[in-house]
Amino acid sequence: MLNFEFLVPTKLIFGRDAQHQVGELVKKYRGTKVLLHYGGGSIKKSGLYDQVTNSLKKAGIAFVELSGVVPNPRLKLVYEGIDLCRKEGVDFILAVGGGSAIDSAKAIGVGVCTDTDIWDFYEKGLPVARTLPVATILTIPAAGSETSKSSVITNEEKNMKYGLDVEEIRPVFSIMNPELFFTLPLNQIANGVADMMSHIMERYFTNTLSTDLTDGLCEATLKTIIKNAPILIRDPKNYDAWAQIGHCGSMAHTDILGLGRAQEWSCHPMEHELSAIYDIAHGAGLAILTPAWMEYVYNENLPMFVQFAVNVMGVDGSFREPEAIAREGIRRLRDFFTGIGLPETLKDVGIGTDKLEYMARKSTGAEYGREKPLGAIKPLYWKDVLEVYKSAAFRD
Amino acid sequence: MLNFEFLVPTKLIFGRDAQHQVGELVKKYRGTKVLLHYGGGSIKKSGLYDQVTNSLKKAGIAFVELSGVVPNPRLKLVYEGIDLCRKEGVDFILAVGGGSAIDSAKAIGVGVCTDTDIWDFYEKGLPVARTLPVATILTIPAAGSETSKSSVITNEEKNMKYGLDVEEIRPVFSIMNPELFFTLPLNQIANGVADMMSHIMERYFTNTLSTDLTDGLCEATLKTIIKNAPILIRDPKNYDAWAQIGHCGSMAHTDILGLGRAQEWSCHPMEHELSAIYDIAHGAGLAILTPAWMEYVYNENLPMFVQFAVNVMGVDGSFREPEAIAREGIRRLRDFFTGIGLPETLKDVGIGTDKLEYMARKSTGAEYGREKPLGAIKPLYWKDVLEVYKSAAFRD
Repeated sequence: MLNFEFLVPTKLIFGRDAQHQVGELVKKYRGTKVLLHYGGGSIKKSGLYDQVTNSLKKAGIAFVELSGVVPNPRLKLVYEGIDLCRKEGVDFILAVGGGSAIDSAKAIGVGVCTDTDIWDFYEKGLPVARTLPVATILTIPAAGSETSKSSVITNEEKNMKYGLDVEEIRPVFSIMNPELFFTLPLNQIANGVADMMSHIMERYFTNTLSTDLTDGLCEATLKTIIKNAPILIRDPKNYDAWAQIGHCGSMAHTDILGLGRAQEWSCHPMEHELSAIYDIAHGAGLAILTPAWMEYVYNENLPMFVQFAVNVMGVDGSFREPEAIAREGIRRLRDFFTGIGLPETLKDVGIGTDKLEYMARKSTGAEYGREKPLGAIKPLYWKDVLEVYKSAAFRD
Repeated sequence: MLNFEFLVPTKLIFGRDAQHQVGELVKKYRGTKVLLHYGGGSIKKSGLYDQVTNSLKKAGIAFVELSGVVPNPRLKLVYEGIDLCRKEGVDFILAVGGGSAIDSAKAIGVGVCTDTDIWDFYEKGLPVARTLPVATILTIPAAGSETSKSSVITNEEKNMKYGLDVEEIRPVFSIMNPELFFTLPLNQIANGVADMMSHIMERYFTNTLSTDLTDGLCEATLKTIIKNAPILIRDPKNYDAWAQIGHCGSMAHTDILGLGRAQEWSCHPMEHELSAIYDIAHGAGLAILTPAWMEYVYNENLPMFVQFAVNVMGVDGSFREPEAIAREGIRRLRDFFTGIGLPETLKDVGIGTDKLEYMARKSTGAEYGREKPLGAIKPLYWKDVLEVYKSAAFRD
């Protein structure tokens, strides 16, 4: 086990009708003028928009709006948000939506408080001194951004998708009412599941030893998702299953599952290259790449992959044939993903082989002459990433 | 799953040498004059006292001292601490020790900021408006007070032991270096293990359904303790095992394991009656009472106790004989406790049968004409508590 520091300052307010508290909560956190930040019309159609604005009005909180967040949220809208907040004297940002709206809100919050170009924080990893407080009402459990220290923004001009990871940008509070997830289409459910499972697996797979507790917490969270996700695919209005999936999604990205462990974090950056160029769903990309990555690296730490197969995927088998157990675990994970409707290959999402080398070189920085390998189980250089991409390209 | 709100504002700083950061941390949290609160001479003998005071001096933090905290910490010392803090203008309390030092520090912190008698907060459950910030350096993993919202104080004049449970009293930061646990005697290790396991079981046993995630998190934490505790009994200087036990102890009492569940909390108040009068170790009392409580209530929710037996205690057996599985789980828990040196009966700790009815009547408030049953799996009135006490009294 490694040394660690841990604090999640985000208050989670969970359950039925929780969204109606938002006005009072903003007031408690001393917001006086709010930027209401969201995507398209879905929150208007569902009635959530009216509930939120009524709650704000009732609490006497002024607000301005910026809608138009899209999946893989764009830098251009972040700039607009920063300008709007400055012009209107906004002191609090409320994201209503999924990870994209929240990530965009986090970027705006940091951008308002600095004279530096906000993109420099993402591309160059500059330290963040200050941000406007950001709160969230989650409508898509997936990215875990409602409790995380992460924000991922796409620079559409540069075809770049980068993450900012700093403690300062965790939301001050997040509201999660599983009923708000009832109207999600099946593909968004599945994409979200793949994303949150990846957040756990990026922490779970490690070469660090003596991590019994976090091993067990990761396994329990993964098993809860694997049990409940198929229920939602059959019955998307199942409150109890959504409560579990939503709770898992937030747990998955607080880092409580990754304390004291060297973490992997290779599938996420490999996927960001796909969605930066092809604008595919992040979860879909992860579902394609994760089993391919596993097949590429499992021999580097076979006991870790045997443990995953046995403790998470329920594989039985002869301990004297560990490779067979590990491979069966990977096979079952792939089957789980395809079973809830996720794609298996890059071809399935319309990605050909022509840009694989370019994306591989970008993923490690080799394209810019500053290569830094991804991952921890096995350091992945761009040639390794290319192998993973190739093996995920199509099935013979 | 039930609605919940969740936030743990305590920063956990975990690992080797972590205690040397304390001066800088206090400064960061704006402490200028510290009450250093601890027990007897053990932190002087171990060198920890010098490390802490040197770190404070180096950071330019003034401090005064109050030692003499004993297990089942006393109200009298709390009053002394309050007077001392007022006289010396203390603005920050640093507890160095186990749950007793931390609980005492929490009581002093609240007491300094109010004109009301501090005992009224414990006996009458008054709301807490303000407290001095409290931080901790943990030397005994057990009570979980380093991250919890709880403090338990014994009023030695009234023979009463009551807990205060309010969010306001969570520490601002807690330092945990597993190396500081190396010198603990075996009985303190075992008592601590029983206490943290009870914190989990008080949350785990529930009649609330659809709680897959927290079920799994509880089970993973219990299994980690059950695996690592016997290692420490054989090898009390095992860093890795202490790292797991220490981490589990803090997890156990943050409430992350109890979110969205109706919680039990009957063994703790039943035990408080024992240690209030007989001054036995809290963990020892819990190890005696918990299996006895289980035997008294398991038929109220047999599937819950079957799940515990199978998922935590590793019991195999015919699902058509669930009662046999449940009973075997309880038997294994009792064996686990006695296997690490904990007592099995009240007689083992020198408690006779003469005060059982008095303690039972006190535990539910019946003695004071305001009976409120304990527990959730089965509401326990004083006559039920008496049955549990009796069944734990001795073995035929």
